[in-house]
Amino acid sequence: MVNLADVRAARERLGGDVHRTPLLSSRQLAEIAGGPVYLKCENLQRTGAFKARGALNAVRSLSASERARGVTTFSSGNHGQALAWAAALEGLRAVIFMPTSAPRTKVDAARGYGAEVRFAGTTSPERKAAAEHAVATEGLVMVPPFDDARIVAGQGTCLLEVFEELPTPGFVLVPVGGGGLCAGSALVAAACSKATRVLGIEPHTADAMTRALAAGEVVTIAPPKTIADGLMPLAAGALPFSLAREHLAGTVLVDDDEIRAAVRFLAQRAKLVVEPSGAVGVAALLSGRVRLEGSSAVVILSGGNVAPQFLAEILATGE
Amino acid sequence: MVNLADVRAARERLGGDVHRTPLLSSRQLAEIAGGPVYLKCENLQRTGAFKARGALNAVRSLSASERARGVTTFSSGNHGQALAWAAALEGLRAVIFMPTSAPRTKVDAARGYGAEVRFAGTTSPERKAAAEHAVATEGLVMVPPFDDARIVAGQGTCLLEVFEELPTPGFVLVPVGGGGLCAGSALVAAACSKATRVLGIEPHTADAMTRALAAGEVVTIAPPKTIADGLMPLAAGALPFSLAREHLAGTVLVDDDEIRAAVRFLAQRAKLVVEPSGAVGVAALLSGRVRLEGSSAVVILSGGNVAPQFLAEILATGE
Repeated sequence: MVNLADVRAARERLGGDVHRTPLLSSRQLAEIAGGPVYLKCENLQRTGAFKARGALNAVRSLSASERARGVTTFSSGNHGQALAWAAALEGLRAVIFMPTSAPRTKVDAARGYGAEVRFAGTTSPERKAAAEHAVATEGLVMVPPFDDARIVAGQGTCLLEVFEELPTPGFVLVPVGGGGLCAGSALVAAACSKATRVLGIEPHTADAMTRALAAGEVVTIAPPKTIADGLMPLAAGALPFSLAREHLAGTVLVDDDEIRAAVRFLAQRAKLVVEPSGAVGVAALLSGRVRLEGSSAVVILSGGNVAPQFLAEILATGE
Repeated sequence: MVNLADVRAARERLGGDVHRTPLLSSRQLAEIAGGPVYLKCENLQRTGAFKARGALNAVRSLSASERARGVTTFSSGNHGQALAWAAALEGLRAVIFMPTSAPRTKVDAARGYGAEVRFAGTTSPERKAAAEHAVATEGLVMVPPFDDARIVAGQGTCLLEVFEELPTPGFVLVPVGGGGLCAGSALVAAACSKATRVLGIEPHTADAMTRALAAGEVVTIAPPKTIADGLMPLAAGALPFSLAREHLAGTVLVDDDEIRAAVRFLAQRAKLVVEPSGAVGVAALLSGRVRLEGSSAVVILSGGNVAPQFLAEILATGE
């Protein structure tokens, strides 16, 4: 498992190479939600998402021989960018497997950090198989996106920062994909502030953690359709699931219209660009699915990597 | 005139009622500009713009009898919103004069803070005359948008915060409309960091400060056409002009295409919603009109109040 000491060690490893992101209060959201609301701005993090924390912690946890072999992963999204960035920072080779359908911007971003991009099929299992083949045949070290103790510990550093500024929020609202950020946050809260309830927020079609918690074991869901493209893994990670089962207060589901409204609200009122996956916590508050009734809430805005044209479309369709 | 002691006194008056906004570094902008770049995020300020500083300082500088009479102004933009907000915070009456053509969102925002909105013509002189009539006949106290020592001192608190985190940047890039923020920044830099050059950035059609500095006196320009709707006064304020003449290193002009590119860059790369007027400093760097050549620069992102549909239009037209 992973514990607070691991998260603290991760923080030492990260040093000043990730941003201590701002924690901003939002009066307008507070009025709607019925209690003080604080936005933890991981959209302003290096690489545009919290994933920089886990990826850099993992890379800096490697042995000398592992470093010499280089790293790989099968995420085309924020974790892929983050690993490319972290490897570049440490001067390591990185090979990122992406679907043949990957948008040009994501390919260019990984290459911009100096990573090698390879294309493998269109589904996550195809990419994973290709990356595992590269591990077996080329000696690359796999850095998985969430089901990994070093990744979970790195993601936990985000809430550690929050608690230094705001020791005992009533709630912490965390987006859930594979569960790395959620698990890291839940374990930190359990160790640092027993009065704080951590809620995992999922798109209602991408409810792998909700179902796993109900079933008492990891379950695989049907491929979800949602605009929250960072929250689409078909199953929670085994490690994140076991931490979530122990420490998470519960999960809340939001739909795509609620997520769109949250992205619009954040741009228009909070002046922040947040990707759909990063806006699910605000969606839970705006929709009334979570009511604070006087308690305070920290909402982790997990990332800001949304294509400008898609953001434009979301903004243009508002009132 | 206004001096550093006035700015420090303003800061005491503001207390915790304005945000200490984040100062974020931007690696991508640094690479383009040729030196470290720091973004002072006044788009994240209360009311969405730095104007909250000057307005609250002015309101808190009023005598008891002035407070009892209430305040007025003729700005339909960020200063109008800020004065409505500041008056509400202090429990004072506020009457904001707006053009009959004012967008519904601005009218609603001022009313949302509890201000009375009155409509007067379509031009700034018409609004100003109507506000002055209200001062004469109803005893309201005028709080002008920039040509006022309390306003200039309030706006100066922004750079005072910056210097506490970053004592001697090579450049400070400040948007210039009537010149309040520019003058406040220039006087603070002159007093706190002689090595820092403050540059005023204007849209090339709205170059009232540039022309005034060239002429050695305030001049009136033709009504400008620019998307930077907060930088359109026809003349610099007399007080801001005299401070700028004494302390400003110079001015730089940018065009609307450069401003659009800056708004897009800030949304896509920095994950910040910045209105066109607030993005002119970034426009000066991206366009190469200001080159850092190793020096550092602080860019004041002065506000984030842009209509979502207009932001969508700017984002959708990018590459």
